[in-house]
Amino acid sequence: MTLQLFDLALADIDVRPSPFCWLAKFALLHKGLDFETVPLRFKEKENYPDPDYGLLPVLKDGDEIICDSGNIIAHIEEKYPGDKIVATAGEQAAADFYAAWVANNLYPALGPMMYLRVLAAAHEDDQNYYRETREKRLGVKLEAASIVAGQNKKVEKALQTLAAPLARHKFLGGEAPNLCDYIVFSPIMWQRAVTSEVFYETPQAVDAWRERMLDLFDGYARKAKSAG
Amino acid sequence: MTLQLFDLALADIDVRPSPFCWLAKFALLHKGLDFETVPLRFKEKENYPDPDYGLLPVLKDGDEIICDSGNIIAHIEEKYPGDKIVATAGEQAAADFYAAWVANNLYPALGPMMYLRVLAAAHEDDQNYYRETREKRLGVKLEAASIVAGQNKKVEKALQTLAAPLARHKFLGGEAPNLCDYIVFSPIMWQRAVTSEVFYETPQAVDAWRERMLDLFDGYARKAKSAG
Repeated sequence: MTLQLFDLALADIDVRPSPFCWLAKFALLHKGLDFETVPLRFKEKENYPDPDYGLLPVLKDGDEIICDSGNIIAHIEEKYPGDKIVATAGEQAAADFYAAWVANNLYPALGPMMYLRVLAAAHEDDQNYYRETREKRLGVKLEAASIVAGQNKKVEKALQTLAAPLARHKFLGGEAPNLCDYIVFSPIMWQRAVTSEVFYETPQAVDAWRERMLDLFDGYARKAKSAG
Repeated sequence: MTLQLFDLALADIDVRPSPFCWLAKFALLHKGLDFETVPLRFKEKENYPDPDYGLLPVLKDGDEIICDSGNIIAHIEEKYPGDKIVATAGEQAAADFYAAWVANNLYPALGPMMYLRVLAAAHEDDQNYYRETREKRLGVKLEAASIVAGQNKKVEKALQTLAAPLARHKFLGGEAPNLCDYIVFSPIMWQRAVTSEVFYETPQAVDAWRERMLDLFDGYARKAKSAG
């Protein structure tokens, strides 16, 4: 029986921006599992597998409903054979560090270039929801959060740190991708889902890695649709 | 035959501040190798194993002279048995990322609290050398580089990122320390060598890890002398 991943969609249901949904999809692909994605918009809570939870991704595996990308990864790593998404405790610790670095350094740098673009690409029924939830989190209007001087330099500084391991290794996981790659690549898929504009300079080593990530799993990520 | 590690010393030759020397010492300890440190001051170039190189650490292993902490680690990892300093390509990639993060985020945050303290603790014959080399690198006088508003917040922000993996794992290496731990702990030994002053708040998970790091190898790092 095919697994179902409930995946956030924008106005065009083929546009899937959520980085946490991307993380879950990469984990499923890594394990070689058959799955289908079920697009859901922000406000379609009644169709969510667990309406009380109301966030995505959610995985439906037979009678089991697993919420949150971290739980989904732990579930499929334990239940299914195939390559480990993360092979050693040291690699899991590194993945936890990358996740915190992405949250503290990469998202705050990318965010100002993204909020109004996600808003514009969201379904009209979702726009108030997106605005209210994000403005509550950010503490300012989306328009104010989008006007930040030198924001491209902040992204470039973060990507310079990322270029160090990628100048010496094909993937953050070494010779093959692991959870570290999927954690760091997910915000790049978030950006790619809503715009193909170029906001900042990408170091060569990071650019080459991005191309390798887009090629994985028969080009699954490369085939993903962008809103603009 | 005992290995010799040539180790940077300040005015008090028992004070060893260099983070790159600390990285080499932790690697030697990790492999369980017998070694002695040979203290050298900045300006004692004529006593350096390779005076033309003129930097530390340098390892003397029989007739072989190995310069630079990265080369020293590669040399002892290849030549000697014992636990691997880094076990997988993924852990090496993580170590490369931590090294870049330390260089781009932790050193720039710690530096302003350190430069004038290192200068004061250096031998009087070394003080001009230290000032000139660091001012050339920084592009400003040490006094100007030491006046930075909110610097403690920058350290705290960096340590919050580090707290994420350490809240879930005993070490950055997982259950046991590896190269990732030594890379990140070396700047903390740099600080500890010159001052016991408290400049910033340390997250509980990072503080507990620091204590574990100080305890390793019969408390080798904990026994290290501080200038003040």
